[in-house]
Amino acid sequence: MKNIKLIIEYDGNNYFGWQKQNDKITIEGELTRALESVTGEEIKLIGSGRTDAGVHALGQVANFTTNSNIPGEKYKHALLPFLPDDISIRESEEVDLDFHSRFDASKKRYKYIVYNDEFPKAIYRNFSYNVPFKIKIEDMIQSSKQLIGTHDFTSFMVANTEVYTTIKTIYSISIKKERDLIVFTIEGSSFLRNMIRIIIGTLIYIGTGKIPKGQLHQILSDKRRESAGPTAPPQGLYLEKVYYEKKPLDIDNYMY
Amino acid sequence: MKNIKLIIEYDGNNYFGWQKQNDKITIEGELTRALESVTGEEIKLIGSGRTDAGVHALGQVANFTTNSNIPGEKYKHALLPFLPDDISIRESEEVDLDFHSRFDASKKRYKYIVYNDEFPKAIYRNFSYNVPFKIKIEDMIQSSKQLIGTHDFTSFMVANTEVYTTIKTIYSISIKKERDLIVFTIEGSSFLRNMIRIIIGTLIYIGTGKIPKGQLHQILSDKRRESAGPTAPPQGLYLEKVYYEKKPLDIDNYMY
Repeated sequence: MKNIKLIIEYDGNNYFGWQKQNDKITIEGELTRALESVTGEEIKLIGSGRTDAGVHALGQVANFTTNSNIPGEKYKHALLPFLPDDISIRESEEVDLDFHSRFDASKKRYKYIVYNDEFPKAIYRNFSYNVPFKIKIEDMIQSSKQLIGTHDFTSFMVANTEVYTTIKTIYSISIKKERDLIVFTIEGSSFLRNMIRIIIGTLIYIGTGKIPKGQLHQILSDKRRESAGPTAPPQGLYLEKVYYEKKPLDIDNYMY
Repeated sequence: MKNIKLIIEYDGNNYFGWQKQNDKITIEGELTRALESVTGEEIKLIGSGRTDAGVHALGQVANFTTNSNIPGEKYKHALLPFLPDDISIRESEEVDLDFHSRFDASKKRYKYIVYNDEFPKAIYRNFSYNVPFKIKIEDMIQSSKQLIGTHDFTSFMVANTEVYTTIKTIYSISIKKERDLIVFTIEGSSFLRNMIRIIIGTLIYIGTGKIPKGQLHQILSDKRRESAGPTAPPQGLYLEKVYYEKKPLDIDNYMY
């Protein structure tokens, strides 16, 4: 048996998100169908995590086990004729049998792209969020520092979601103006449902003066979805990279 | 009566090109419909030139005359609710009554974007041409110099087209690698049907070694479409800018 890891890029506009659903077209659904055509087996695909409807990926990761003898690096070629042109395989390789895309992910990097102009731009419409108001980038940068670190992010989660924990760690947030775009880059251990889009929506409210710039500590401690800003739309969001950095085993932490 | 000039951006993927056709969805058709809704008049739109099906524009120019008293700069706002989201008005202004988008155009700049990677990339698929072979950029740059200046471009035109003249002037061609893209920028007085896409197709054949790099003089002098390379696909092409630089009147040339 082989364990195959895929790095996947997709334009999320035409999909009801990552997760397979019986009656809807999804990324996981299309990939599974293509893999079953290639291998002739029933495939259980494991993604690093879900992306919502309309969200894109530059480097989503998924793995599956198979008895097929196709070499790992060949899936990149083999899947091409079976996938729609808005889903691409960037890399494929055979990995250790114990590799698990979701459990082993140590860090994820997302990008969010705002097109900041009074008028929408046709070519950007499906790949950015058009904010027509003046945005103070410096205010967003200063405020974003209050989100770095380990916090209870209940205020930045779809209300009334049942989750194992609402405590998450954000490692970094960078916000840069690039020509007519504002590019947000967020790295964290993992994220709650809609968390990044609510963070972006809240930062934009701070940048446009709708939420005072010192407010983020208060929003975090409120632990109420209503305290934060709106959920920024999905078409500006990209899952850029999933990191797999081996953490030391618990036994090591114990012994040294 | 007012003469209104528009600068228009569009994603050409969903259109049968610029020119109005009775039974097909076109950019000119959509704009005319929107303008007629806004003004309540029958509108005759004059574009700087046609773009083919699937070709994009960042700065197409068109003008129309109207008895409506809407100020010129307001069309940018007024058209917004009447246009599909893949057509945007970048600028609108009132201009001299004798301004004519097509006859007064002195220069046009086009961009062509190649995504040069062995595998296609989902997010780029509608906005670039994926060439999976190794391309020698230096060979394309050297060869492109043979196209600069005034030539008979019959070899770079859809075969058997009836036109007033096949003599055209190219002012400049720049070819630059930008990350995983190759960006071609071509400026010229005006262009024959498919001329830029055949130039790009031919340069790529030179860059990949399918046409010898000294061959362009010969291809030009052959005056046969079959001598040139293939027509590069439309989704990589962008009409970037139309220039209106007042030329001296003939009488001035005569007198000084």
